[in-house]
Amino acid sequence: MKNYRKTDGNLPIGGQLALSLSKIQAMNPVVFTSDIVGDLSRELESYAPERIFVLTDENTRKYCLPVVRNDKIGEERIMTIPAGETHKSLRSVEMIWEILSARQARRNSLLINIGGGLVTDVGGFAASCFKRGIKCINIPTTLLAQVDASVGGKTGINFNGFKNEIGIFSAPEKVMIDVTFLKTLPPRQILSGFAEMLKHGLLCGGEHLKKLLGVDRDVISTAGFSALLKESVEVKERVVTEDPKEKGMRKSLNFGHTVGHALESAAIEEGTEFYHGDAVAHGMIAELYLSVLKKGFDRCLYHEIRTFIQALYPVYTPSASPEKLYGWMLHDKKNEKEGVNFTLLEAPGKVSIDNYCSRREVTEALEILSKRD
Amino acid sequence: MKNYRKTDGNLPIGGQLALSLSKIQAMNPVVFTSDIVGDLSRELESYAPERIFVLTDENTRKYCLPVVRNDKIGEERIMTIPAGETHKSLRSVEMIWEILSARQARRNSLLINIGGGLVTDVGGFAASCFKRGIKCINIPTTLLAQVDASVGGKTGINFNGFKNEIGIFSAPEKVMIDVTFLKTLPPRQILSGFAEMLKHGLLCGGEHLKKLLGVDRDVISTAGFSALLKESVEVKERVVTEDPKEKGMRKSLNFGHTVGHALESAAIEEGTEFYHGDAVAHGMIAELYLSVLKKGFDRCLYHEIRTFIQALYPVYTPSASPEKLYGWMLHDKKNEKEGVNFTLLEAPGKVSIDNYCSRREVTEALEILSKRD
Repeated sequence: MKNYRKTDGNLPIGGQLALSLSKIQAMNPVVFTSDIVGDLSRELESYAPERIFVLTDENTRKYCLPVVRNDKIGEERIMTIPAGETHKSLRSVEMIWEILSARQARRNSLLINIGGGLVTDVGGFAASCFKRGIKCINIPTTLLAQVDASVGGKTGINFNGFKNEIGIFSAPEKVMIDVTFLKTLPPRQILSGFAEMLKHGLLCGGEHLKKLLGVDRDVISTAGFSALLKESVEVKERVVTEDPKEKGMRKSLNFGHTVGHALESAAIEEGTEFYHGDAVAHGMIAELYLSVLKKGFDRCLYHEIRTFIQALYPVYTPSASPEKLYGWMLHDKKNEKEGVNFTLLEAPGKVSIDNYCSRREVTEALEILSKRD
Repeated sequence: MKNYRKTDGNLPIGGQLALSLSKIQAMNPVVFTSDIVGDLSRELESYAPERIFVLTDENTRKYCLPVVRNDKIGEERIMTIPAGETHKSLRSVEMIWEILSARQARRNSLLINIGGGLVTDVGGFAASCFKRGIKCINIPTTLLAQVDASVGGKTGINFNGFKNEIGIFSAPEKVMIDVTFLKTLPPRQILSGFAEMLKHGLLCGGEHLKKLLGVDRDVISTAGFSALLKESVEVKERVVTEDPKEKGMRKSLNFGHTVGHALESAAIEEGTEFYHGDAVAHGMIAELYLSVLKKGFDRCLYHEIRTFIQALYPVYTPSASPEKLYGWMLHDKKNEKEGVNFTLLEAPGKVSIDNYCSRREVTEALEILSKRD
């Protein structure tokens, strides 16, 4: 078991972060903008791509593409995939490749992905494999995509029933974040992104976590929220810069996701509508419970966070047995040895990776999810 | 037009190469071996992968896999794709992903690709996208794969009728070259690889080129040939190390390939059996002709090389019109602006990249191919 507590476990927002900011900016090209039209236009002038392609889903084509409008985007190079997780598929990627190939995309062509994580993951993967890589710009339009998928260069699709089974690490040229897109987003989608922010808060601790736990439900997505979002993106940037290929510290970002992914798979199988963030939020409850059990995480704080999450997020009790959920966790790619590998917390900001938990411990943690204090 | 003549154009085998050898070894992990069984066994012990998968084609499964034999390779994790260019396809990659997923390959699993360039390109692509990248070892078993596909980390598949339309740059952990595999190779396949060696000779010039032009047809593939092969691999390693992502100097490796790929596409469409190396050899005649025309390449040496190639390689006169061949060249990914972009030579060892040739010049060069002195 590797323990990064003493050296790398703390992820404060302040001084320590500033040290490697230039390194971060070089690797993670996130820009916050309140003038997406002007900033995109300047970006496109600086690259001067021969041809510009755009990928949207059905919703972002209708609601977001008109906001982004740019003269250089020709109608015949706009590609649209249906919304929904089932379209995070090889078939969608093939469709993109066929259009890029038929409409003569070249190595210096550019793909602009406008949408949630599905669009940026699928489009990023398609672009990075076309002619061994064409450039892309991501314009994430959901809170989840802005705070999570926007940073770290993970691209991918689901395959053979498993999430993100196929994909590569490949960073876009630029990620342009405009919070005004959030205003038209349904509240449940806002909550889904907020779960990842809460995770970042637990990983870095301190004032940032306090602000998150004190946030008013109605404030999320307003202008005042924008500073908190920036801080959250910086936490992820810091972790990813330290460990771009997920060999060590980046595993901390899996916090809440080992249980979360299993819950998500169960919900998909049942046909229950359960968002990624809903799953991660409940996954964090289970994994904080394991942190109390194995790493001495403060029991009172665990209860406070559990209450906070249960008040915000819909409860979901999967009909799949703990055995089946455990099986899904075993397949999860974060498990390199036999057994389920968890990222746990000793305290907010004190991360411990590569903790193997037994079937009994995991089952106990799953049972917690249907209970309330 | 960029001209690398004064700074980087020379690619001598000797002193200059030695300077960056450590850099090369770090990036291009090619090892020559005469004990493939022992060396592979030691490699596998050093990685200790959880599960080992093997990819072969029908021929290498029969003739090469038994040579490589290793106790750690379980029958149920051997995958076989049919031989032949049509199987350098997304369907082959999908088949590999399905087996890797179903037989629980994990991030620290390893794929061993045993075969020609088709197997190493397809297997390399499949591995680099599975769970965002698992390791592979390549064991190239054809001269072409040993001298060309083994170095440089290009992986890929054909798509939408275009060669290598989909793929990424991703280097294997190790490339193990054993010349004893060449002994069972048909002479035409040997010749196919020899064309790439000749290209390397033209790119570096000097003694190495002389040795190649003086080589006896019967010597190719014998033990004495092995030193020449090593020198040839070193030329490619040097170029790729300077420019791994093909932004400048690596384009020199396209010499002979712009015309060559068009000839290959024509032959595939007609159903004529015409090997990659055959196409490159004739492509080099055409592109040397353009070099005489535009870069002052020595006319006598051009005739000498043309005679040498025409004596060794089967002649092919495509039924496709020069217009159609020109159209294929325009689609070729090496062309970043309108027009066909060629790598030409001022002299052996003096490379000039990014030369745009007109339709008339290209047509003239194509007509040369059916003529003899």
